[in-house]
Amino acid sequence: MRPVDYPEPFRQLARQLRLLPGIGPRSAERIALWLTAAKDAKPIELAESLREAAEHLKPCSQCGFFATEELCEICRDETRQPEICVVENATDILPIERTGFFRGRYHVLGGRLAPLDNVGPEDLRIAELLKRIAEEIPTEIILALSADVEGEATTNYVAEILSGLQVKLTRIAHGLPAGGGLEHADPLTLQRALAGRNSLRV
Amino acid sequence: MRPVDYPEPFRQLARQLRLLPGIGPRSAERIALWLTAAKDAKPIELAESLREAAEHLKPCSQCGFFATEELCEICRDETRQPEICVVENATDILPIERTGFFRGRYHVLGGRLAPLDNVGPEDLRIAELLKRIAEEIPTEIILALSADVEGEATTNYVAEILSGLQVKLTRIAHGLPAGGGLEHADPLTLQRALAGRNSLRV
Repeated sequence: MRPVDYPEPFRQLARQLRLLPGIGPRSAERIALWLTAAKDAKPIELAESLREAAEHLKPCSQCGFFATEELCEICRDETRQPEICVVENATDILPIERTGFFRGRYHVLGGRLAPLDNVGPEDLRIAELLKRIAEEIPTEIILALSADVEGEATTNYVAEILSGLQVKLTRIAHGLPAGGGLEHADPLTLQRALAGRNSLRV
Repeated sequence: MRPVDYPEPFRQLARQLRLLPGIGPRSAERIALWLTAAKDAKPIELAESLREAAEHLKPCSQCGFFATEELCEICRDETRQPEICVVENATDILPIERTGFFRGRYHVLGGRLAPLDNVGPEDLRIAELLKRIAEEIPTEIILALSADVEGEATTNYVAEILSGLQVKLTRIAHGLPAGGGLEHADPLTLQRALAGRNSLRV
């Protein structure tokens, strides 16, 4: 009697699913079972979507957001203000867009300084930012990086690099989150809230 | 200024991922982001696995387990004992195989009687089971269905159907789970544990 396992195509699918973020071995097997056995599963449609996304999605050559053409929708929009909001990742752009508050364009650094993970200044899209500033002559550059140690370090580094340029340079405010009461705020948040939106240079 | 969202191929991928079991809208977006942006993501390989699984996996024509040929690996294995273990779903087979205790073949009913979900006897592979019994002349038929109300009803129904045949008919024991102490067992489990593995007919 040979030991039995699922057939190879099934195990291959489960292995691929297990690579996805947040999917463990049990979930991978459960999803693979559903995909191969459930009546309303659409494995071919999912395969098609994956192929479409892999083939047609690429980073915007200017800002780094997701694009299907050379430039993304935001960079192509000529009604945008001449302001540049610098973010760490392409995924940081839509949350800002959804506020409806910022009407300029973006620049994705592609990460932040993290010496422990071997991410140095040369890994970030800083040269591209300097090039854009020279060409687009923005009225303001807003640094919108994470409010943690590495984000702070990156903000300070970029601010230092840009310090010689004649452009208004700001960073987003760190402070109380909406709905957060003073009594529940940690001392660091409170300290930053007292300072408000900081102009790094007036 | 136009409202911006992710490009269509991205949203299509997220919509497809959202259909998977246990994947909500946020997870779908997170996985889609990872698949399109992460360095070690392999969307094409995943698409290929999906296609392979959809094209090559089918239910074994005899027992209903996953197969890549007409018969599954278990039904092709000529060293198996002439016993048939009846289960609800194809996914119930490997847990039994992994015990190494049962050395016969299986028969997948394809569900259980559930009047509320419009699942009646004609939706289960009972005719196929009768045909197999007539052809294979098994020495024993073990009913290994769920230990809940619908599983019980299905067990009783199948036992009734098979009652006229000259074949040993058993069902798996219901009782204390491994590692379960008596003090934590519910009365119904304990009641069933007292009875042990029941021969429906000697």
